[in-house]
Amino acid sequence: MALTDEDKACRDLLANWCHEAGFSVEVDRVGSMFATRPGHGEAASPLLIGSHLDSQPYAGAYDGPLGVLAALEVMESLNDHGIQTPMPIQLVNWTNEEGARFRPPLLASGVFAGQYDLDFALAVKDDAGMSVGAELERIGYAGTASPGWPVAGYIEIHIEQGTVLERAEVPIGVVSGVVGIRDIKVSVFGEDTHAGPLEMSARRDALVGAAGMILAANRIGLEHAPDARVTVGRIAVPSNSHSVVPGLCEFTLDLRHPERAGLDALEETALAAFQEIAAERGLDVTFEPIWAYPPIEFDKALRAKIADAADALGYTHMALPSRAGHDAWNLARVAPSAMIFIPCRDGISHNEREFAEFDHMAASADVLLRTVLSMTAPP
Amino acid sequence: MALTDEDKACRDLLANWCHEAGFSVEVDRVGSMFATRPGHGEAASPLLIGSHLDSQPYAGAYDGPLGVLAALEVMESLNDHGIQTPMPIQLVNWTNEEGARFRPPLLASGVFAGQYDLDFALAVKDDAGMSVGAELERIGYAGTASPGWPVAGYIEIHIEQGTVLERAEVPIGVVSGVVGIRDIKVSVFGEDTHAGPLEMSARRDALVGAAGMILAANRIGLEHAPDARVTVGRIAVPSNSHSVVPGLCEFTLDLRHPERAGLDALEETALAAFQEIAAERGLDVTFEPIWAYPPIEFDKALRAKIADAADALGYTHMALPSRAGHDAWNLARVAPSAMIFIPCRDGISHNEREFAEFDHMAASADVLLRTVLSMTAPP
Repeated sequence: MALTDEDKACRDLLANWCHEAGFSVEVDRVGSMFATRPGHGEAASPLLIGSHLDSQPYAGAYDGPLGVLAALEVMESLNDHGIQTPMPIQLVNWTNEEGARFRPPLLASGVFAGQYDLDFALAVKDDAGMSVGAELERIGYAGTASPGWPVAGYIEIHIEQGTVLERAEVPIGVVSGVVGIRDIKVSVFGEDTHAGPLEMSARRDALVGAAGMILAANRIGLEHAPDARVTVGRIAVPSNSHSVVPGLCEFTLDLRHPERAGLDALEETALAAFQEIAAERGLDVTFEPIWAYPPIEFDKALRAKIADAADALGYTHMALPSRAGHDAWNLARVAPSAMIFIPCRDGISHNEREFAEFDHMAASADVLLRTVLSMTAPP
Repeated sequence: MALTDEDKACRDLLANWCHEAGFSVEVDRVGSMFATRPGHGEAASPLLIGSHLDSQPYAGAYDGPLGVLAALEVMESLNDHGIQTPMPIQLVNWTNEEGARFRPPLLASGVFAGQYDLDFALAVKDDAGMSVGAELERIGYAGTASPGWPVAGYIEIHIEQGTVLERAEVPIGVVSGVVGIRDIKVSVFGEDTHAGPLEMSARRDALVGAAGMILAANRIGLEHAPDARVTVGRIAVPSNSHSVVPGLCEFTLDLRHPERAGLDALEETALAAFQEIAAERGLDVTFEPIWAYPPIEFDKALRAKIADAADALGYTHMALPSRAGHDAWNLARVAPSAMIFIPCRDGISHNEREFAEFDHMAASADVLLRTVLSMTAPP
């Protein structure tokens, strides 16, 4: 978890490996680590490669560390082969990608890309009331560096966390972009009443209404396959008593789609269905936006370079969107950015069963190295 | 709420009124208050009349206090008219009927009727960790009395908390008994996964399964109208994240029916439906009994006396079951017991909108007085 003693141990290990390979390590104001392999040319703008070392509770070993360690391997390979690049190559480990301890997720890359103010990020607190700023001080990662700017580009390797590549038996995914995500708080209002005396036909049961809405949301998501994702992940019944018919039920509706029009269609269809269910059951329903991230398309030229690199190395590849948020999604706002996905077993992630094949990890690092060379070599 | 400063204030006021009317007040080991009007005969077994003063958060003024104050009015009327009864008449205010602060509900009447050990009851703690025993000491109601035993009978006036009497425009309900209640913890197991990458058709979403079960439970209850009540009042999704497909959902299933065979049918139908829904969605479901109270029938002779009293006073009356638990349900195990219901507006209870007509309250006290006289007068 971000900024814990375990995160510090991972960070220290990474810093040691970077120092041993001859790379200087800087830490910025939100604790993101930048290890630099200097360029030989006049170009000062670095090419960033990396990912994050923080994780979720009970999560696996690949979501995050794969992208950081593959970046280190690429930079060490440049050393091993004595290759000079015109621009600096920088490994980056972003602080608090997961948002599992400190909300929101993608925090440090958001500061880097100008989405969040530094002061906001440092003041974010975990459930125990510890702030990002205080925890950075505590583990010795409250840095002062202002890393290279502007950025020449950003490339991140990550496990897919889905089954598209695994089912297609394709080792390399060239990520087309990140889907748009809208989260909406849905509140269903009925009337609290005793579970015994009132006849059932006279009830206005908010949870029964919410149950109909949850089934409708799932059905609407399936009807918009393969691109839509519709999820109810949080639910609360404030009365919370076995003997009280719920008068209020609140839940989150998470909508994901690669296209804005698709997001609009999901939102309109779901909200209309919810209103119809509420009306049928004599309930009221309200909707409150929590956040709305637009879909982002990754840089076309960079995606073409990744595809070319995979071709040259003899790896099959395919285009697919990311349906989860990644730091590349913030970086894409300020620099040409792209991601390389590899399969993970059964698509399982945020789970200790998470697993990726060694050969796929090696292939992704090979493709990253070749892509870096294609970007840094003279035309 | 039971054993709070407000409960103490209500208890003190009741004790003052009882003392002013010349009744001695005793408090037993679990804080139940007994105000005695002595009998003139040799019969030592008292006739108990009363209810409870504790309440639910945000509840109304009638659920509980009506039965206590009507009992006081009856005993004061016996004074006013100089009527001597052969047996003692005892007003009772049971501690923690509601179970809103201390679980289980019906606690003190359960101790009185031998359903719970005294030590168990005193050790019960609220959410803040305060025990019944410590709170009784704190508010000065840790008594030592052992009230009269055996009990000649118990009669309790209460609002119906339903709409049967209101719709029938009948002021007096002669309660036939208390329905049986079974509570079951239902756990639905799927698999936690990220809300983005995995295609929706591959999900094993425990909350979507639970939603289907909640709708099925409601439908099964309606299909067994008018006697069945089926309620899901508590629900929890431990992963509780907008971006995680729930791998576990837990909820309570509350089943009520006046007949054991009816309860059996509800339980069998609901659990079979839940298993079918789980199987269809690739989920697992488990059931764990929380408690099971059998239906209880009130004393036939006492019910006939109440009906006769209403007839004599010119009040229309009808028989109906109680679908909520009441202290009379515990007393019925050890003494002839009965209840008198009156209408409450729209059946609303456990809600500040709870309301009962003055004329209906007065009618119930009249019926109680006449029933008491019919039980205590020489044959």
